[in-house]
Amino acid sequence: MKNKMWGGRFSGQTDELMERFNASFGFDRRLYAADIRGSITYAAGLARARLITEEEAQQLADGLRQVLAEFEAGTFAAQLGDEDIHTAVERRLGEIVGPVAGKLHTGRSRNDQAATDVRLYLLDKIADLARHLHDVQRVITVQAESLMGLVMPGYTHLQQAQPILFSHWLMSFFWMLERDRERLRQLRERVSILPLGSGALAGHSLGIDCDFLARELGFRAVSENSLDGVGDRDHLAEFLAWAAILQVHLSRMAEDLIIWSTREFGFVELDDAYSTGSSLMPQKKNPDSLELVRGKTGRIVGNLTALLTVMKGLPSTYNKDLQEDKEPLFDTIDTLEMVLPIVAGVVGSLQVNSDRLRSALDDGMLATDLADYLVRRGVPFRKAHYLVGQVVRQALERGVALRELPFSVFTAISEHFAEDVYQVFDFDRSVRARSSRGGTAEEAVREQVQRAKEALAKE
Amino acid sequence: MKNKMWGGRFSGQTDELMERFNASFGFDRRLYAADIRGSITYAAGLARARLITEEEAQQLADGLRQVLAEFEAGTFAAQLGDEDIHTAVERRLGEIVGPVAGKLHTGRSRNDQAATDVRLYLLDKIADLARHLHDVQRVITVQAESLMGLVMPGYTHLQQAQPILFSHWLMSFFWMLERDRERLRQLRERVSILPLGSGALAGHSLGIDCDFLARELGFRAVSENSLDGVGDRDHLAEFLAWAAILQVHLSRMAEDLIIWSTREFGFVELDDAYSTGSSLMPQKKNPDSLELVRGKTGRIVGNLTALLTVMKGLPSTYNKDLQEDKEPLFDTIDTLEMVLPIVAGVVGSLQVNSDRLRSALDDGMLATDLADYLVRRGVPFRKAHYLVGQVVRQALERGVALRELPFSVFTAISEHFAEDVYQVFDFDRSVRARSSRGGTAEEAVREQVQRAKEALAKE
Amino acid sequence: MKNKMWGGRFSGQTDELMERFNASFGFDRRLYAADIRGSITYAAGLARARLITEEEAQQLADGLRQVLAEFEAGTFAAQLGDEDIHTAVERRLGEIVGPVAGKLHTGRSRNDQAATDVRLYLLDKIADLARHLHDVQRVITVQAESLMGLVMPGYTHLQQAQPILFSHWLMSFFWMLERDRERLRQLRERVSILPLGSGALAGHSLGIDCDFLARELGFRAVSENSLDGVGDRDHLAEFLAWAAILQVHLSRMAEDLIIWSTREFGFVELDDAYSTGSSLMPQKKNPDSLELVRGKTGRIVGNLTALLTVMKGLPSTYNKDLQEDKEPLFDTIDTLEMVLPIVAGVVGSLQVNSDRLRSALDDGMLATDLADYLVRRGVPFRKAHYLVGQVVRQALERGVALRELPFSVFTAISEHFAEDVYQVFDFDRSVRARSSRGGTAEEAVREQVQRAKEALAKE
Amino acid sequence: MKNKMWGGRFSGQTDELMERFNASFGFDRRLYAADIRGSITYAAGLARARLITEEEAQQLADGLRQVLAEFEAGTFAAQLGDEDIHTAVERRLGEIVGPVAGKLHTGRSRNDQAATDVRLYLLDKIADLARHLHDVQRVITVQAESLMGLVMPGYTHLQQAQPILFSHWLMSFFWMLERDRERLRQLRERVSILPLGSGALAGHSLGIDCDFLARELGFRAVSENSLDGVGDRDHLAEFLAWAAILQVHLSRMAEDLIIWSTREFGFVELDDAYSTGSSLMPQKKNPDSLELVRGKTGRIVGNLTALLTVMKGLPSTYNKDLQEDKEPLFDTIDTLEMVLPIVAGVVGSLQVNSDRLRSALDDGMLATDLADYLVRRGVPFRKAHYLVGQVVRQALERGVALRELPFSVFTAISEHFAEDVYQVFDFDRSVRARSSRGGTAEEAVREQVQRAKEALAKE
Repeated sequence: MKNKMWGGRFSGQTDELMERFNASFGFDRRLYAADIRGSITYAAGLARARLITEEEAQQLADGLRQVLAEFEAGTFAAQLGDEDIHTAVERRLGEIVGPVAGKLHTGRSRNDQAATDVRLYLLDKIADLARHLHDVQRVITVQAESLMGLVMPGYTHLQQAQPILFSHWLMSFFWMLERDRERLRQLRERVSILPLGSGALAGHSLGIDCDFLARELGFRAVSENSLDGVGDRDHLAEFLAWAAILQVHLSRMAEDLIIWSTREFGFVELDDAYSTGSSLMPQKKNPDSLELVRGKTGRIVGNLTALLTVMKGLPSTYNKDLQEDKEPLFDTIDTLEMVLPIVAGVVGSLQVNSDRLRSALDDGMLATDLADYLVRRGVPFRKAHYLVGQVVRQALERGVALRELPFSVFTAISEHFAEDVYQVFDFDRSVRARSSRGGTAEEAVREQVQRAKEALAKE
Repeated sequence: MKNKMWGGRFSGQTDELMERFNASFGFDRRLYAADIRGSITYAAGLARARLITEEEAQQLADGLRQVLAEFEAGTFAAQLGDEDIHTAVERRLGEIVGPVAGKLHTGRSRNDQAATDVRLYLLDKIADLARHLHDVQRVITVQAESLMGLVMPGYTHLQQAQPILFSHWLMSFFWMLERDRERLRQLRERVSILPLGSGALAGHSLGIDCDFLARELGFRAVSENSLDGVGDRDHLAEFLAWAAILQVHLSRMAEDLIIWSTREFGFVELDDAYSTGSSLMPQKKNPDSLELVRGKTGRIVGNLTALLTVMKGLPSTYNKDLQEDKEPLFDTIDTLEMVLPIVAGVVGSLQVNSDRLRSALDDGMLATDLADYLVRRGVPFRKAHYLVGQVVRQALERGVALRELPFSVFTAISEHFAEDVYQVFDFDRSVRARSSRGGTAEEAVREQVQRAKEALAKE
Repeated sequence: MKNKMWGGRFSGQTDELMERFNASFGFDRRLYAADIRGSITYAAGLARARLITEEEAQQLADGLRQVLAEFEAGTFAAQLGDEDIHTAVERRLGEIVGPVAGKLHTGRSRNDQAATDVRLYLLDKIADLARHLHDVQRVITVQAESLMGLVMPGYTHLQQAQPILFSHWLMSFFWMLERDRERLRQLRERVSILPLGSGALAGHSLGIDCDFLARELGFRAVSENSLDGVGDRDHLAEFLAWAAILQVHLSRMAEDLIIWSTREFGFVELDDAYSTGSSLMPQKKNPDSLELVRGKTGRIVGNLTALLTVMKGLPSTYNKDLQEDKEPLFDTIDTLEMVLPIVAGVVGSLQVNSDRLRSALDDGMLATDLADYLVRRGVPFRKAHYLVGQVVRQALERGVALRELPFSVFTAISEHFAEDVYQVFDFDRSVRARSSRGGTAEEAVREQVQRAKEALAKE
Repeated sequence: MKNKMWGGRFSGQTDELMERFNASFGFDRRLYAADIRGSITYAAGLARARLITEEEAQQLADGLRQVLAEFEAGTFAAQLGDEDIHTAVERRLGEIVGPVAGKLHTGRSRNDQAATDVRLYLLDKIADLARHLHDVQRVITVQAESLMGLVMPGYTHLQQAQPILFSHWLMSFFWMLERDRERLRQLRERVSILPLGSGALAGHSLGIDCDFLARELGFRAVSENSLDGVGDRDHLAEFLAWAAILQVHLSRMAEDLIIWSTREFGFVELDDAYSTGSSLMPQKKNPDSLELVRGKTGRIVGNLTALLTVMKGLPSTYNKDLQEDKEPLFDTIDTLEMVLPIVAGVVGSLQVNSDRLRSALDDGMLATDLADYLVRRGVPFRKAHYLVGQVVRQALERGVALRELPFSVFTAISEHFAEDVYQVFDFDRSVRARSSRGGTAEEAVREQVQRAKEALAKE
């Protein structure tokens, strides 16, 4: 109790289990660098406001740097009473610099301090994640270029639909991730708001210059309302929602590749580096990396749900429930810092079996082109669709490919079919024809890649 | 089966229950205006590409407008085979204009059509919601100004913490909603991307000018990748996450006001217009409006979870699972279109009991000011905190207010206390002192209101 | 206002939007039969307690039966002031029987009434769902028997693992659903608790015999605590969690079948009755039924999240937030009443392509048997696993099946291989060998089916 | 790679980040005791099936016990290649006993091994949690008895509703927890199913007696289907759903007590042992323990969502995604092992301020009794409700308590009011009158306590 920051008013002892239940040092210790950086700046702010002398500010800064060094060297010795990173740092600082340490918390509450620390930490991590995301996008672009021209079945409902380029499929994920990157840039601006100076809830009365603090710490602005500053966590919810959407994107890429790496599809093979085997079955090569990428979506969606559930119906300003904001955040960051490089590695080392892609192409996928053929001969599309449906049925019943149907079958179904109908049965031509913006023709995909590179170059 | 859009290839009948299971007309009929607007523009696009004549385009447009009129007059007669809004409109169009109706779907799939419809619909709704949000913010600002100066207890952990202005509390929600409004503006730009032209998945080959379609329909850009265009729903997930965060904000305001309208707090009373009674207990006046606002958070978080769960691990492009995107979206929109005006009404008509606010103020809330008093006399804050804790304990043990403690108690605890210590016991002074940006002093809150008005005036 | 149940104390009017926001009649009207059944019994209870005469009870019962008839004939005319089903029924009852209607609510609150109605309704629905579940299980059993003996690749990580029987796969879902059915039976007992008599929250003082009410309404017991009776909803959360787990089971079956019905796998084909086509691509036959089954998991998980979020941190007893319990419940019931018969239909009409199952079998799946071969010759399993891994690698490098490797390759890898090693390459033998309880041998699967039938016969 | 269990087939190296991404040893090491216990029994099973000799079984058992001892002494030295607890134990066992260690995994896969370990672990933890739950219930019962007779306001919508006993409120949570305990008992039976013998997915062919294994390990039965045995996790989802419901119950108790411990309510005060202070505000005493209890609901609901999301749409049998089942499970167990004792501590040491409870009682809460008074005089309840509403309004308008209204006011409203109406204004009488089963009368609450004790004594 003695070393508690808040012990004066209490007569009873804290229950021992309660100490553990209450403590956050186990998980918020990772905030040490942010906490110390914030405190050094805060000490400068106190000096500017003449609440402490320049010498005291210097003493505090030196002491804090020593604490930082201990954390970084792994020599920081935690003590039983260290409730959280803030308490731990201040306790240690006191041991180093003596009573002047007691001046550091002037006008500051753990409410605004913790909120500041998490924002500082997250700003750093957002920069890392943006880099990782950029890497994945870059790898996609490189692969899309190097694999350009490979035709494969495009699927809807997991049924063969129309032929597409493998690179077109790759690039579809580029654009999903590009939106993710844009969202990240925008939410970053909302993280970059300084709550320090909000005190416990009501602001402070000591003349500390918060604009100075913001500038020094790299925040773009100061919080407009102290109650909001200490009590809201919407920037964290937004970050977790961002992560959930990103993970959904990656889980879908994983799903495709897992299915395509089955023996039955055989379109791709993961590099050994991203596969594992079985403890029982010697022949197994499993796409564990991608399964984990897909599975990790669960924890991220769970983290988002967790925070929203915590926040729902909470009285305004700070409540201890908010301590539950950190673990979902940290777990999400840690997860993405693994997932993104893994995805980059998997995509970058992916082996694509072009023969299997080609041999999987079924004439049925040209039925739409066949309908377009009729449309160009004046048949209304809806009718053309129906007629081609009849053609498909004939082929199914005879157990042959569309191109193997005798001409008489075509003419029996519609007088608009001419001998040149067989020219439709050309997958490359079908792909080539879809050359409009966003289409699967090589020309259009190359344009996509070009725009993608420009987007990547911007940052 | 006959009137199915896709019947040609099938020999068996659809199971009757399957028809109902598959059908979305029950909930997607609300897209009628968007669907028809999209189709009129699409017909113009077909004519530009010379796939139909100008006359045919005109016929289609006229017919579509008639269908629209029927929907708006409530005379549209649904039929059993109407799977979805797209099928229903095309079926009815055919009845009106004859075989030319069959040309409308040329080069278009329900995949890109439905994706376009939902975006058009959502863009409209975003505009409505932005207005409703603006209203709530305006009402908050008006109340904050008209109630300016009322001092009340500020709470953390629902325990009295420091005195604040009621208007400061009100304004804290302004800024939360302001971030919500900013997020909405930003996500709107991601909704405003046209997927029409993506076809089923691979783009189209018919020379339709998608930039023309985008311009006519008010989209800011065309989708960069057709697979992404038909298969991704991240803009909906983002919208639902946005709504969940907004609801969390409102649920917290509701929680505060529900607690404050208890007999025990008695700070506020809801207008009769937003309260209801009990079927059994004649004396009851319940804050049902706010309880529902709080409770609705559940469904919105649920809707978000629903969509993320649907999307997780889905193969890329369109899968029928995506039909499950609409109900969570519509339910969220409907809910917010009720919740926001209700909140505006509740806040705008709220009766605040200033006597109760004032009489609730406890001297304990001035303990921080007491510590600041010592700090100004050179006591390190941490020590000051401890000493004031002793003062508080004395008061608790004697069962008196801080200001009622004899001077001897103060001096026994610290020599730094002088007679002027009693000047600290002034709630107004305490509030006044917190005049930094975002603080609770009237001066600072008036600045907040000023900035708030500027933010509102921008749009 | 006049026709409100609770108007006496109020002077102001309810806001019109608030009326709509507050009203639940739109969704709770489906409780009409439960509500009326409860009220008829309650009237009998009032008469037993001599709070009304037998004649009055008869009048009330007759009137209520008339209201019921109106609901069932679709002639019940809702009015603007009908807040909820309880108000609507009582209002209409008053029109039919006059002032005596005003005696029905004696000692009863909408809090205990609504809680009772939902339980009555849910008990009915649980019986329906148990039947539907039983049907799915029965169909699985029938198919498992009729398809007995078909060997197919068994997968882990979606990679071929070991040969199994198709019927073994089918039966794996039987046991998942059997646990679901067991859970449903158990939770039913927790739904079957009567809260009527709890009044608004504190119980009643009028001598009504709640054991009589419970007996008449078919509840197994009376609530032990009135606060709990009106305020808890854990039986609904439990039901929604039950539904989520059931849906997860069905989504996994759907996933398997969707993958197996691709052209590339070609193991199964859905009946036309459970498939749909494409508006654009004439050749398409999509497994929409199963995609929807999989997708519906989202809404059920969302409904569960919604209710848990509503309940979290709610003050005890009744709060209006609890009105939000009904829509997730109803939506879940409606969904399952569609999903279960659809699954039964899909499984019952599934076409299995035994040739494709057989031809998909790869020798790699016998690698474990090969290791077992070495184990029986005294090689420790871990070593055997490693040696067989070498064999597999040889086959991969040579691009041949395991059985095509020359004997010299085997002996080069281990001296324990003898000529009889080629006998291992027999899929049927591999399946036959796994005859332990729960194994894939036909003998073991037939035992499963036998136990399954016994389980089904029990109810 | 060398020390991988599955290396034989692979030629490439695993990526270093992939090693970390794939590894589960960091969190599944806590399964060591379960894993080793399972392996010792498995070795005995291998010996019974004559796959190893009795001596070998003994060697393995001795070696395994040594590994166990190392874990318990904290001397187990993890190595880089230790993917998971199973690999780590087998690796170390090999170091201790030599090549015979390679025989332990005969016929076993990590799929069935891991599934078994988690079940063994969970069975232990369920026993612990049941004990903790029992403790909380016992403390509630003790407090309910010792505080018997204290009258307080009962609330609905957080508005005063009817007077109740504090002990009645306490007991309402007993019954919620009693259902939780019942659910736990039932789900335990579903955890107690042995999947060992399922092998990788297809069962085993080596004649191991699974009934023996089940008996030795304390499982009530053997899994009926090997695919289900290795691939389903519904028992974990059920456990997490159970925990979420339990947490919802506790969060509601926490909410009540947090509100009641405000200065404004002042009904209860938490013991210092379960409170903390503020780093800034010396007067603060915050109910952190309860806020954390409430907040922890978020993580538990998040954990449930996480697992359901992971499972949704997963191909059947084992997929690596399932590795994500453990952390939500462990986190949930760890959380509850803290939360339950904390709740027991808070409730057991709660200080109840009976004067504040009594002085908070408002006459309005007797309005229902007033209506009952009229009902007993023959006024239909609905009319009585309306008339009493008028009485309440008179009191509100005059700003007096109901009992302070002059008799003339009563008679002006209804001729049925007689002088004895003032006897209604007696809170104790009101409470006493609600003596039916589950009601708030002391007599009824004492019966509750009696039944509660019987329920607790059963186990």
